[in-house]
Amino acid sequence: MKIRFDSDYIEGAHPAIIEALTASNLEQHIGYGCDEYCERARAIVREHCNDNTVGVEFLVGGTQANVTVIDALLRSYQGVISADSGHINVHETGAPEATGHKVIALPSADGRLSARQIAECYHNHWNDCSHEHTVQPGMVYISCPAENGLIYTKAELTAISEFCHAHGLHLFVDGARLGYGLMAEGCDFTIADLASLCDAFYIGGTKVGALFGEAVVFKGEEMHRSFRYAIKQHGGMLAKGRLLGIQFSELLKGGSECLYFSLAKHADRLAAKIRSAFEKRGIRMWIPSTTNMQFPILTKKQQEFLAEKYVPEFWGRYDEEHDIVRFCTSWATKEENVDALCRDIENL
Amino acid sequence: MKIRFDSDYIEGAHPAIIEALTASNLEQHIGYGCDEYCERARAIVREHCNDNTVGVEFLVGGTQANVTVIDALLRSYQGVISADSGHINVHETGAPEATGHKVIALPSADGRLSARQIAECYHNHWNDCSHEHTVQPGMVYISCPAENGLIYTKAELTAISEFCHAHGLHLFVDGARLGYGLMAEGCDFTIADLASLCDAFYIGGTKVGALFGEAVVFKGEEMHRSFRYAIKQHGGMLAKGRLLGIQFSELLKGGSECLYFSLAKHADRLAAKIRSAFEKRGIRMWIPSTTNMQFPILTKKQQEFLAEKYVPEFWGRYDEEHDIVRFCTSWATKEENVDALCRDIENL
Amino acid sequence: MKIRFDSDYIEGAHPAIIEALTASNLEQHIGYGCDEYCERARAIVREHCNDNTVGVEFLVGGTQANVTVIDALLRSYQGVISADSGHINVHETGAPEATGHKVIALPSADGRLSARQIAECYHNHWNDCSHEHTVQPGMVYISCPAENGLIYTKAELTAISEFCHAHGLHLFVDGARLGYGLMAEGCDFTIADLASLCDAFYIGGTKVGALFGEAVVFKGEEMHRSFRYAIKQHGGMLAKGRLLGIQFSELLKGGSECLYFSLAKHADRLAAKIRSAFEKRGIRMWIPSTTNMQFPILTKKQQEFLAEKYVPEFWGRYDEEHDIVRFCTSWATKEENVDALCRDIENL
Amino acid sequence: MKIRFDSDYIEGAHPAIIEALTASNLEQHIGYGCDEYCERARAIVREHCNDNTVGVEFLVGGTQANVTVIDALLRSYQGVISADSGHINVHETGAPEATGHKVIALPSADGRLSARQIAECYHNHWNDCSHEHTVQPGMVYISCPAENGLIYTKAELTAISEFCHAHGLHLFVDGARLGYGLMAEGCDFTIADLASLCDAFYIGGTKVGALFGEAVVFKGEEMHRSFRYAIKQHGGMLAKGRLLGIQFSELLKGGSECLYFSLAKHADRLAAKIRSAFEKRGIRMWIPSTTNMQFPILTKKQQEFLAEKYVPEFWGRYDEEHDIVRFCTSWATKEENVDALCRDIENL
Repeated sequence: MKIRFDSDYIEGAHPAIIEALTASNLEQHIGYGCDEYCERARAIVREHCNDNTVGVEFLVGGTQANVTVIDALLRSYQGVISADSGHINVHETGAPEATGHKVIALPSADGRLSARQIAECYHNHWNDCSHEHTVQPGMVYISCPAENGLIYTKAELTAISEFCHAHGLHLFVDGARLGYGLMAEGCDFTIADLASLCDAFYIGGTKVGALFGEAVVFKGEEMHRSFRYAIKQHGGMLAKGRLLGIQFSELLKGGSECLYFSLAKHADRLAAKIRSAFEKRGIRMWIPSTTNMQFPILTKKQQEFLAEKYVPEFWGRYDEEHDIVRFCTSWATKEENVDALCRDIENL
Repeated sequence: MKIRFDSDYIEGAHPAIIEALTASNLEQHIGYGCDEYCERARAIVREHCNDNTVGVEFLVGGTQANVTVIDALLRSYQGVISADSGHINVHETGAPEATGHKVIALPSADGRLSARQIAECYHNHWNDCSHEHTVQPGMVYISCPAENGLIYTKAELTAISEFCHAHGLHLFVDGARLGYGLMAEGCDFTIADLASLCDAFYIGGTKVGALFGEAVVFKGEEMHRSFRYAIKQHGGMLAKGRLLGIQFSELLKGGSECLYFSLAKHADRLAAKIRSAFEKRGIRMWIPSTTNMQFPILTKKQQEFLAEKYVPEFWGRYDEEHDIVRFCTSWATKEENVDALCRDIENL
Repeated sequence: MKIRFDSDYIEGAHPAIIEALTASNLEQHIGYGCDEYCERARAIVREHCNDNTVGVEFLVGGTQANVTVIDALLRSYQGVISADSGHINVHETGAPEATGHKVIALPSADGRLSARQIAECYHNHWNDCSHEHTVQPGMVYISCPAENGLIYTKAELTAISEFCHAHGLHLFVDGARLGYGLMAEGCDFTIADLASLCDAFYIGGTKVGALFGEAVVFKGEEMHRSFRYAIKQHGGMLAKGRLLGIQFSELLKGGSECLYFSLAKHADRLAAKIRSAFEKRGIRMWIPSTTNMQFPILTKKQQEFLAEKYVPEFWGRYDEEHDIVRFCTSWATKEENVDALCRDIENL
Repeated sequence: MKIRFDSDYIEGAHPAIIEALTASNLEQHIGYGCDEYCERARAIVREHCNDNTVGVEFLVGGTQANVTVIDALLRSYQGVISADSGHINVHETGAPEATGHKVIALPSADGRLSARQIAECYHNHWNDCSHEHTVQPGMVYISCPAENGLIYTKAELTAISEFCHAHGLHLFVDGARLGYGLMAEGCDFTIADLASLCDAFYIGGTKVGALFGEAVVFKGEEMHRSFRYAIKQHGGMLAKGRLLGIQFSELLKGGSECLYFSLAKHADRLAAKIRSAFEKRGIRMWIPSTTNMQFPILTKKQQEFLAEKYVPEFWGRYDEEHDIVRFCTSWATKEENVDALCRDIENL
């Protein structure tokens, strides 16, 4: 059996989560996220946010979380600004558009947006004398880490947030891989920073130790009144909501010592090992990711050699002779497998 | 702690399912329902359907399944015929409308629709000379069991199916509680019958032993080409799809001896005990349900007496002095708790 | 050629409008409602409203106006309360649902809603402990005159408005036939009253003298910022917006002496003649309409007799032997044709 | 008063149309496009199409026509391929997205798409093993003339059509300025060619002599059954449909000698004069348009000089010192005004 490095959701959940689900299995609880496990998980999330006024709801998956937040926050005639490589623009089968909202895709060299780009887009809209003939920007969506593993600095996030809030734009951060970002070398922001800077963001569980689940954090009177309606309307209200409460309690309890952080740290450390191995071998990396995804630029021959034992993911063509290839680690990646891979990289 | 009879999803999953999830937890599988567990579950479902050409996809919940099927099958200018008490018309926060489709709600005395009603609605539409000013009926949605626990006979289903297919209407059966229906006294149809009569239906797992999950069965070239797009667009494609494949394999393997059927039978038998107890005590039932939901008509005083130990659900006002109250059993209901309840009913 | 009484839009426009369009035809004006004719018409509408802060935009037709206002005012998870006989619920091919909003249809004996009904619907929603499982009421839609020609009293409108505004509901009045209502015997409210009581309403031109056009009046910061976006997004922004500005200027200039009112008065007066003729002949009227639509209850034989010379509209079955039949007058109806009809009614 | 060249819809309608509307004004006709004028106009359009099986419906404006056709032809999970400069992607306030459909925007150097680009987009989609995670291409939208006035050759249209129909894609041509294209120097296709090559297209009236109106031509059983529903649902069914029938009858009667063609020829000829004047003066044109829109590249100083007497439209920045400026002629442009402009261009 080959060893898979093609994504960060190829195993189930961390054993502690399986245990917690098993232990509580025959308890009786009311549904739809109103049970005591969800309440406890909400309290834990609010502690991480250092803000006990934020709203917290648990959804099953990332596309669901994205589209529910977008549709809940925007008015019908507004669109959402995103990097053209953003997940909502590329890999969600037009889910935002299916709720009526255009993705205003801005070109991005490295998968991220800057406050300057956002400002330019915003001002171009409002300076156009016939601006009502184009979609009104209503929200900025960024992924952190981005789809290529890059993170933002606190200063960059702050600049984006300040522009947004000075100009009536919502800021929403897709945190499907948030843990891997928070624990990455060079990351200088925290969950509390996001809670302070964003109108909505989520702490991704699916890719960081849970069976499934994203903890959406949000602010604002309108969202407090509406978000559960939006969840139900978009088919995202899990009948046995306790399953989400239990998982996020397990992942996030313990503050800075929580399981979520240690699992993410593990993955980032192993990814750094893989990056080092490629770099030592003289192989260029596509982008300087410090999170759990690494993108060496490989020849067909190098790919074939590694494919004998491993399953990475083809990410895209780099040039005539090279491809960009993704190696993902996760909370479940075994160190021995990474070490084996590194030895084989030496022999490329 | 009071004993809950207020719904059929207050516990987790049958222990066999927890075991199967635990046993496979650290295996590596690709995502989105393309793994081997899902393939195996699809094969098992097709056996129950006695039709190896049907499409099978696994979704997380009922509202999600309803809205995804409706939006996948209908054209933009079509609506879906439903009993006014149908789940899609009442308890889904306008999810079908959020995808653009009006629910054409027909009055229903007992929560069910008849072929005659459907025919009348259809012909009224097309006999109207300005029919393009009203929504075109494109689909019939029925719940089986209905929201009040009543089931259809095979003859009734056949009549509906024949009308639909003679007139270009899709037939979609919401089977959120399908197991409890199939095992009910007097039920004369099978999963294979549904597969033969419907364009789409689902085998509900959430309420019948699974942690979550609905197995959607569908036919037709368009659906085979499109349904996975529709799932993804509606945020319903579970990243770790294996979780659904494992659960439905456990529930449905074994043909007529499968766990799904035995769990449902258990619930129906205990519900019949409760009904008997009420009837012996001279208390009228709201409707003659033979499935896992029973609806005695109780005075406030009777309700207060039972509320000391039990949690049923208030269903609606019956008259000045009586309410309709729902008692739900499930795969997880303990016989001893039902026996205790029955003794207390004697003393009402 | 038979004389038509089957609707109020069977002729073109009042000659004064044709003249105004002809006179201005070769002038050069910028598009999309930003020209000076539209500005002038806006000022005239604001005078009728006795409020120079209201927004005014001109749309081509009624369904377009309804759906644009509804989608602009509601949040994605909200629905609109309407009488079940309301135009948006019956004759717009699911246009509100196509923008994602459920019509919350309340039964109505006479085509109108009462503040009491609205309050009951509102409180039922919020008293339901699982209210997020149903669509949140966000707006009340009423037609005035209603689809059957009945009008509201100022007291009734005030009661509805007060409930709405005390409970965060928008109030929207469909005025497709507003002129005929305002000029009807017994009408005790004015355009200024509507401007004061509603969040949005429109002054219907299509049925009252214009070639086409509805003047939508609205209030509120959000609507001022958004409504032109909503119009464009819904395909309702007429390139040569001047055509609407010219028409509404012609119709509404002159205050209480304006053409719009005199045309409506003419139609109402002729309708009253028809009603009198039926009543003298001992024929019951379905409802006590004082506007331009009259609904006698006729036998088949009576219908056949009148059908020799006239074209009324079949409205619905009344009982085994009688139908409800609609006779419409309009600004264009000729008195001599009504007199001929009345003579024939005598001979029924 | 300055002379406007900023768009092709700054006057009303050709006098012959005003006359026809006036002459028929007090006739009584049934509504919604079912009157005899519409029937006559349909027959005339079918003659131009050389195909008496095509469907023909008349809509009021271009955005409305675009979004109605797109939503009627696509399934919910499909998107529409367009040049990134296409009107639906830029200037319709997200109207296609508001009906749920993503615009799949392809980069275009000259505002047009090629069969090769479309093929590449299509194959990229289907070759992606996770294609259901992206919007399925369901239609190709092209504007002819494009937004910059360029036209396609018959060979180019044929290549696009053949690819589309070999691969299950609908082809839809936005003909808002179709007349100016058909009459342009070098145009080698006809309305009959479009009827043969496309699934839907429209003959734009608003910009070519009508007060308003677009004649949508379509094929296919589904469209014949559904398109009038789609029109009504999108608020596009004009109550007094006769207004559209009368206008298109006037414009298109007379075959190759019809008013529509002569009006367009007039505009194209005057535009060619303007282009010649610029070229003689040594001023570059942005693109080689032969239709009614010309785009000289002008310095600020040149713009200021012309702005003393004329109103062209700023189209975009060209480089640090030059802008692209649009001069539009139309059916209503006076030759004397063009001659005056040409003299002033000489003196730039």
